[in-house]
Order: sequence, then structure tokens, then C-alpha cells
Amino acid sequence: MKLATYKDGSRDGQLVVVSRDLGLAHYATGIAGRMQQVLDDWNFLSPQLQDLYEALNQGKARHAFPFDPAMCMAPLPRAYQWADGSAYINHVELVRAARNAEVPKTFYEDPLMYQGGSDDFLGPLEEARFGSEDWGIDFEAEVAVVTGDVPMGATPEQALDGVRLVMIANDWSLRNLIPNELAKGFGFFQSKPATAFSPVAVTPDELGDAWAGGRLNLVLQSAWNGRKVGMCDAGPDMTFHFGQLIAHVCKTRNVRAGSIIGSGTVSNKGVTDDKGQTDWPKGYSCIAEKRAIETIQDGKPATGFMRFGDTIRIEMKGKDGQSIFGAIDQKVVNAAA
Amino acid sequence: MKLATYKDGSRDGQLVVVSRDLGLAHYATGIAGRMQQVLDDWNFLSPQLQDLYEALNQGKARHAFPFDPAMCMAPLPRAYQWADGSAYINHVELVRAARNAEVPKTFYEDPLMYQGGSDDFLGPLEEARFGSEDWGIDFEAEVAVVTGDVPMGATPEQALDGVRLVMIANDWSLRNLIPNELAKGFGFFQSKPATAFSPVAVTPDELGDAWAGGRLNLVLQSAWNGRKVGMCDAGPDMTFHFGQLIAHVCKTRNVRAGSIIGSGTVSNKGVTDDKGQTDWPKGYSCIAEKRAIETIQDGKPATGFMRFGDTIRIEMKGKDGQSIFGAIDQKVVNAAA
Repeated sequence: MKLATYKDGSRDGQLVVVSRDLGLAHYATGIAGRMQQVLDDWNFLSPQLQDLYEALNQGKARHAFPFDPAMCMAPLPRAYQWADGSAYINHVELVRAARNAEVPKTFYEDPLMYQGGSDDFLGPLEEARFGSEDWGIDFEAEVAVVTGDVPMGATPEQALDGVRLVMIANDWSLRNLIPNELAKGFGFFQSKPATAFSPVAVTPDELGDAWAGGRLNLVLQSAWNGRKVGMCDAGPDMTFHFGQLIAHVCKTRNVRAGSIIGSGTVSNKGVTDDKGQTDWPKGYSCIAEKRAIETIQDGKPATGFMRFGDTIRIEMKGKDGQSIFGAIDQKVVNAAA
Repeated sequence: MKLATYKDGSRDGQLVVVSRDLGLAHYATGIAGRMQQVLDDWNFLSPQLQDLYEALNQGKARHAFPFDPAMCMAPLPRAYQWADGSAYINHVELVRAARNAEVPKTFYEDPLMYQGGSDDFLGPLEEARFGSEDWGIDFEAEVAVVTGDVPMGATPEQALDGVRLVMIANDWSLRNLIPNELAKGFGFFQSKPATAFSPVAVTPDELGDAWAGGRLNLVLQSAWNGRKVGMCDAGPDMTFHFGQLIAHVCKTRNVRAGSIIGSGTVSNKGVTDDKGQTDWPKGYSCIAEKRAIETIQDGKPATGFMRFGDTIRIEMKGKDGQSIFGAIDQKVVNAAA
């Protein structure tokens, strides 16, 4: 099924069930008011939502109305956890190659992950407000899952069973704030502002066989100012699957219902031709990676980061060509203006 | 006023008002069921809770019952944000001196802070379960505040106005997991398991003039296996006050109601005598600092980390000798047993 959270003036919004084709919606009133409630009591509430979802798809839901992504908050407008991995090691390899740094061997065995702020997410069509263009404004197109309860010490297989919902995310990054922050040794903080999520979160069964082995084998599209810059395959180059990412969090603590776990920037390996030339035909899911490729190829980056007024649209379509999660479509805005 | 959260089998527990002397409690039923609700709607709900608090202190609350810290969850059993500073630079200086590393100048101008997991906090008397003693189990006695909404770009003064409640915390740390994590460059993750909080959270007015300039000028006591190891003054050596810490979070994003901001390990400067000998008479608020002092004095640490079965009690008393927040009193337990 597909679920979304409609704005209603409250902090947590109002839960709606959305039809498979994203055409219709229906308030989940009488079942659950808020998304977190469903995650807290999944086994009891999700079958009731599923029934409503089926009625909606069959045109039998009595109070259906046209679904409007502009009414959407993030599916979880605030969450108790947002832990973002860097599961596509190709992305790490490119960024490091651009600065002549090696990728430590352990990076292939142990996921990179940072804890993000989760008290104030952005809706899919909300403006992204930043204090300065000098901060190096960048998008990051990602896949993310929402979990149920997963106990401390869970194996990757057990952890994967804990996946309740799948979404796409735009993990905004302020690239020029990163070097100083990482030099301090405590990881990202100010360089990771509020993250945006797709209009709709879906249960894994909606993804059919594209959801396999803890990976989502579909193309994540990114269009920057209307120009398609990324058509990245989210499946094959994901070094650590979502079960491994969740198990990483669980090593020393419990993961509780409603935790959001991100994949990190989706990234595909380059293709080398007969003449030894490497190209990245699938494009990029963040500007930092494009700049890394430019640095590898030409010695320096040519593409600048985002400017006030720029837009970024991130979307994923199923094998039938239909949008699965709806689109993230945001404009960068001057917070000081 | 003083507020706590009683276990009731639910994820968020039941809000209770606690008398100033921690002797009596009263369910806040009819005003608010959960702590987060109060923080979401502070201006409307807190005066009603204050009235109940005054009635309780005067012995006029009709359904008062004896307050039992064993019934307490963390005041916020789960939160939308837990951002922990390292505001006592003396602690950083000691740890760095022990490994012959300098403290960068920027550390005195820009707070160190990490984003912690906030989906599964421990109650004040709950066991702390860990998979191995080899992880280097350590307590960290801290002061923490809970905020209301603070907008992006707030000044330290504006941010300080956003403090709603004050607590004490035990930010459990797994010291032997830290070097590998920090070497990866993404900051702490597995090395920071579930944090525990005091039974009671109090409004700043409860602290009288001990709460001044965004600092809490009282002694934080730590007793390890019943032996008092720390009597650290939380006020004077706090390099960054809570307004500065919150403003640090706000630089690139909003801080939303119910965010918890920690001080980092409370730490006091050493005292150097006529002969040039330095001692730390106030003791320590985490074992890592004791080991750093031993390394500075004797070339190597003598004190080991915590063992299964060890206990740690953290408490803060007012000028009248009464416990303000109640005690954190936890036992370290083998999660594998």
C-alpha cells in the first residue's frame, strides 16, 4: 500500500492512504491519525489500512478525493531517528579519487553511516531555505526505508524483516561546510540541514521483484533546473543492502519503530571503453560526484553547486513507467531574503 | 515545576507532575498524557501543569501518590532530536594531552557536537546492556536541556530563551569502538549506545540563581560502584553555554520542540600547586578522563573501563542539599547472557 501525510496545521499532519496510481487519496480517519501511530502498532493497524487501500484502488472507497502532492508533508514529518548510510561505495571511491585519497579496505566491510537530525523534515514540494550560496548547496538523491522495532544484535537478515516502508529522499548537503566539520572529528552536523522525502511511502510488496535482497532495482531520476542529470540504477552498485545498514545501527542499541535509514547518494560505476576511457553514462545523484568526475578527468571541477532559485526534481518510476513515490521537487531559496 | 514520565506499558509513558522534594507525584491526566505533547504546546499546557505542581507542593493535590523513581522512563522516552555537545573544553584538552595532540584553536570558538540516536532512551534506573566488556564501557555525566521551537539562524541569546526543561544525563560511551569510528570520518555511531536520563526534568526557574548565563552552577556527583569519583562543578568551566550550543544546531536548520541538547562530559580544570604539580581534586565525570589524567601523570592509564555488574550513580543536589532531578543509578549488564 501507499501512505502519505497531509498538512493539517499540526506538527504530525494527517495520515492518508493513496491509490497505486497516485490519483486518489483517502483519510485514514478511524484507523489512525498519524503515520507514527501506524508504525508503533503495525501488526494491528496495517491490515486495516491495506483494506482501505484495496477499496481505494477498486474505486470503492466512499470518501476518496484527488491526491495532491502539494498537500504533503514528509511521510513522517518528524521521526525518532534518521540514520543515513553511504552504501554506494562507488560514490566514496569517486570523491576520494578526486582528492588522490585511497578508500580504506574496511569501507568495503563496514558501512559508513551518520546520524542525522530528524526533528524537522521537509515535505516533497517545500522550498529548501539556506543562509548562503557559499555553503555549497547540493542535493543527494537517495532511497530510504522506515523500520519497525529491530532489537540490538539483529543480523542483517532479521533487520531486513524490519523494513515497513520505502521512500525516496533528498538529503540536502552543504558541501563547503563539510571539510571544517569533518576536520573536527565529530562528523557532519551543520553541513546536513533538513532532509526532504517523497510524497508517498510504500510497503515493499508494492515494488514487486524490483525489491530484492534488500535493494531496490529501479532507476532514480534527478533533474536539476529541468535538465535530467541522473538516471542512476539504485540496485546493483549498492555495496551494503538495507538489512546490513539497519544491522549496523543495531550493533550496540535497539532500533525502534519509525526509524528512517537512508542509502546515501545512489551512484553507479563508470564504464571503461576499449581505449581505456572511463565515462559515467548514468549521470549523478549529487553535484559533488559530478565535480569529482570532472576533477578526475580534467584536474578540476567545472560544475558549480546550486544557486538560489535552482530547482531539483527526484523521482523513481516502476517498470510500468508510473511514478512510485511521487516526485520530490524543491526550489532553493535564500533564507535571509 | 518538575515533570517525569511513568511507565504504563506504552512507548511514551504517562506524564506526571512531581513535587519539589521528589516526595509526591500526580498524573497530569486532563492536562496532557505525554511529555512531548507539553513541549508541542508549551504556552497553553505548562501553566496548567504549574498550577497542579503548586497544589502538589502545598499538599492540596487530590490524587497525589508517593513518587517512585523506579517507575520512571526517561522524561522523554524517545525524542525527535538528541544533539550532544562537548562544551567543557577542559575535557577535550585532557584527552588530547594524553595522546600528545594539540587542541585546534577553532575548538574554543566553535562547539564540538554530535548527533545522537534518540529513538530508545533508557530510564534512570534501567540496566545498561552491552554485548562485550571489550567495547570499553564508560559513563558520561552531563547536563542536558529540552528545547521548544528555535528557528534557523537564532542567536545564542534567542536560543537560550528556547530552553524549557533541564535534566541530567548519562551518555554511555563505548571507548574502544571510538578510534575506528572516528578514523572513518563520519563521527560517532556504534560507540554511542542508548543514553539514560534523570527521573525528573525541571523548568529553569526551579534552579534559582544556580541557572545563570546558560550554565548550571551546581555540582554533578558521580559514584562508580558506590565510590564517589566525581564532584564536578557544572558551571564555571563550561566553555560554551546552552544558548551557544542550541544556536550551533540552528545555524543551518530549525530546532523543533522536544529537542534535547547535551553539555558533554562535565569537567573541571586542574589545580597546580607551588611545586608545579597539577591535580584534579574534583574528580571525573567519565573514566576516559581519569585515564587521560593517569596517562599525563604516569605515562599510561591505570583505571580500567566498566565491567558487567558495575554500577554508576549520577546526581545533582541544590544548595539546600536536596536532589534536584533524582538520581540516575544504572547497572551494567551482559546483553549476551
